Amino acid sequence: MRIYLAGPDVFLPDPIGRAEALKAICARFGMVGVSPLDVFEPAPVEWATLDEAMRIARQNEAHIASCDALVANLTPFRGPSADVGTVFEIGFMRALGRPVCGWSNHPAKFADRTREFLGPSGDGMLIEEFGLADNLMIEGAITASGGAMVVKDCPHHARWSDLEAFANCLALLGQRT
Amino acid sequence: MRIYLAGPDVFLPDPIGRAEALKAICARFGMVGVSPLDVFEPAPVEWATLDEAMRIARQNEAHIASCDALVANLTPFRGPSADVGTVFEIGFMRALGRPVCGWSNHPAKFADRTREFLGPSGDGMLIEEFGLADNLMIEGAITASGGAMVVKDCPHHARWSDLEAFANCLALLGQRT
Repeated sequence: MRIYLAGPDVFLPDPIGRAEALKAICARFGMVGVSPLDVFEPAPVEWATLDEAMRIARQNEAHIASCDALVANLTPFRGPSADVGTVFEIGFMRALGRPVCGWSNHPAKFADRTREFLGPSGDGMLIEEFGLADNLMIEGAITASGGAMVVKDCPHHARWSDLEAFANCLALLGQRT
Repeated sequence: MRIYLAGPDVFLPDPIGRAEALKAICARFGMVGVSPLDVFEPAPVEWATLDEAMRIARQNEAHIASCDALVANLTPFRGPSADVGTVFEIGFMRALGRPVCGWSNHPAKFADRTREFLGPSGDGMLIEEFGLADNLMIEGAITASGGAMVVKDCPHHARWSDLEAFANCLALLGQRT
């Protein structure tokens, strides 16, 4: 079972080491982790003329399409929500009809994080109040796809290092098949 | 041509009035705007047992799948990036292979907005530096889909009211067909 490793983990100080750590956990479950940092082969010839950003985007789409499931790090990133690149990839995989799991090391609900972010005066716009971990499209897709959302109450210093919730997603995917 | 109206516009103080305004502009181009606030009919019977958030998520996915193109309001929302629900929907439509356009009323590049958000000390993680309007998956998908990203330099007070960039997306989609 090939698992696409979605997440802002690629922005961590040692992204290759992080990808290797995620792949090692996949291997423990008999799964193959596919990182956005992996080279997609064979690369379609038309990618050669693209600039770097466009080529990375096409490569990540191809990686996702090559996988059986997607596991996304949804720990909030630079704001109350998850990284948008990660959420794009969830939408992409959801439309392909394959299972998506999400994990987060932040225990607070989306509505509470949003209120904390905006402060008492708010921004004059509605705050989603469904008791979910993030925007409803994310958890809606995860649930409808047959996946699961795993949230761990991690201390702040461990938010980008603790991989227990990630491993729990793999365990759930393994039980599913 | 049916256009899915993706965006955090549903969180504005008068979301129905906003949807009507967007649909009126679609009609000027001979297009039909489909809002996340519209009721999807006929609703599959299995939605009846879902809670509200899950039902909205399924309905939005069904609306997107019923449309020929998607136009997304990518004006930054509660952080340096666009609304994650909107970006999920772009990923979903991109996997369906149909055109996606994005518009934003914020002129700054993603990297500059991120630096402003994080402050001089940063967060110890990489900042994407590709000169794009947001995360590369978004503009990568828009470009690969045959759509376009339209950015307007709006004054702050008009950021959630000015619809010129939205109309420009429709004009581009109209020329495309």
